[in-house]
Amino acid sequence: MVSKNQIKLISSLHQKKFRTAHGLFIAEGVKVIGELLASHFELEHLYTTENLFAEIALSKKTMVGETDLRKMSALTTANNALAVFRIPASAEITQSGLIVALDDIRDPGNLGTIIRLCDWFGVGQIACSQETADLYNPKVVQSTMGSIARVNVSYVNLEDFLVNTKMPVFGTFMDGENIYTTQLPAEGIIIMGNEANGISKAVEKYATKRIAIPRFGKLQQTESLNVATATAIILSEFRRK
Amino acid sequence: MVSKNQIKLISSLHQKKFRTAHGLFIAEGVKVIGELLASHFELEHLYTTENLFAEIALSKKTMVGETDLRKMSALTTANNALAVFRIPASAEITQSGLIVALDDIRDPGNLGTIIRLCDWFGVGQIACSQETADLYNPKVVQSTMGSIARVNVSYVNLEDFLVNTKMPVFGTFMDGENIYTTQLPAEGIIIMGNEANGISKAVEKYATKRIAIPRFGKLQQTESLNVATATAIILSEFRRK
Repeated sequence: MVSKNQIKLISSLHQKKFRTAHGLFIAEGVKVIGELLASHFELEHLYTTENLFAEIALSKKTMVGETDLRKMSALTTANNALAVFRIPASAEITQSGLIVALDDIRDPGNLGTIIRLCDWFGVGQIACSQETADLYNPKVVQSTMGSIARVNVSYVNLEDFLVNTKMPVFGTFMDGENIYTTQLPAEGIIIMGNEANGISKAVEKYATKRIAIPRFGKLQQTESLNVATATAIILSEFRRK
Repeated sequence: MVSKNQIKLISSLHQKKFRTAHGLFIAEGVKVIGELLASHFELEHLYTTENLFAEIALSKKTMVGETDLRKMSALTTANNALAVFRIPASAEITQSGLIVALDDIRDPGNLGTIIRLCDWFGVGQIACSQETADLYNPKVVQSTMGSIARVNVSYVNLEDFLVNTKMPVFGTFMDGENIYTTQLPAEGIIIMGNEANGISKAVEKYATKRIAIPRFGKLQQTESLNVATATAIILSEFRRK
């Protein structure tokens, strides 16, 4: 059984202020929960409609009805499992390897997709501006498909972070150098800009290398690529030999 | 002024059966509407909250209040303009150049993003299976950001389409050849599979060339890439020299 107050607390975690106040976030579905359980994330409690996750102690799990799960869920179609995890202290970004820096990515789906891409391409660190979507937003957690457990995402003052780095800093701009013919190093910071405005003026000045993804459409009217698909193409170029 | 019946008709166009019955679809926002007006799409009527699109005849436009526009809108946050366009007859796919074939892409956002990518990379034709999301779904129209005006999207029986082609047919599979070291031609069909199940068994047998995007994550646990980001990487590889 789950009390009305518990349901209220859990559904309050859909909002950032309550996640911050309680230090908790939710994850849904067997796949995502399984990946988080197998990582450093600490389970607070698990709610399921079926007998799942036999390895979890009985004190940490509760069977609930579908109606109750739906009330707690942030998904349009609730899953068969919802877990509450503790928000861990975020690790500092270390200046090595490839690092993706996000300059105000507002859409939770885009942030989640970029985390999944970083995981695929072995990029272990993401530095987000304070205005970037919250990592523990249920839509972000869901769209990472578990990659959230393997990529270190840290919120920083992006200007302070970039002013202090000794690594090359890549930014994508219309007038940048063709990414297909640019020598791309194994270490560096790649800035991806906001969905509507691209990289902000304040951050742009720290880009030491301006790159561009050439367009091939004959009418030359396509305004831009979606930030997640642009990240996919750029990470692919950095990693291919 | 706009009547209650008109509002009802327009909001019914959020659903496919009414789009098909009326032969109409909606587009929202100045950018998307502008791109459609500049193309072969035929405007039925335009509704705006401000005096926009001076070039449109008065008989084809109506000023409406924000409340009415919100009732017609398919967006969470309504824009300042909503246009109703006629659904054109779809053009046949001609067997030349690069063609993307979609095997049951269900998510409207993914379909829209893939259309936008095709436009960017100069891929003028997309062949969709009948189960693929509807091109005129408002979410698809919106996420193409106007690219819908420049890419020919046609719904076909994908097996019939593939059995008759003489072009090379590429499919992405876990056991495929590393895309970074494969010779990729300027002409061919690229199949992208369903979000959950990948390329279906029925379609898989027509793939004459099996390719793969290598993963670089050290834990090798990332299950897959999102279909739109995978399409981005593949089209980029086909187009780069």
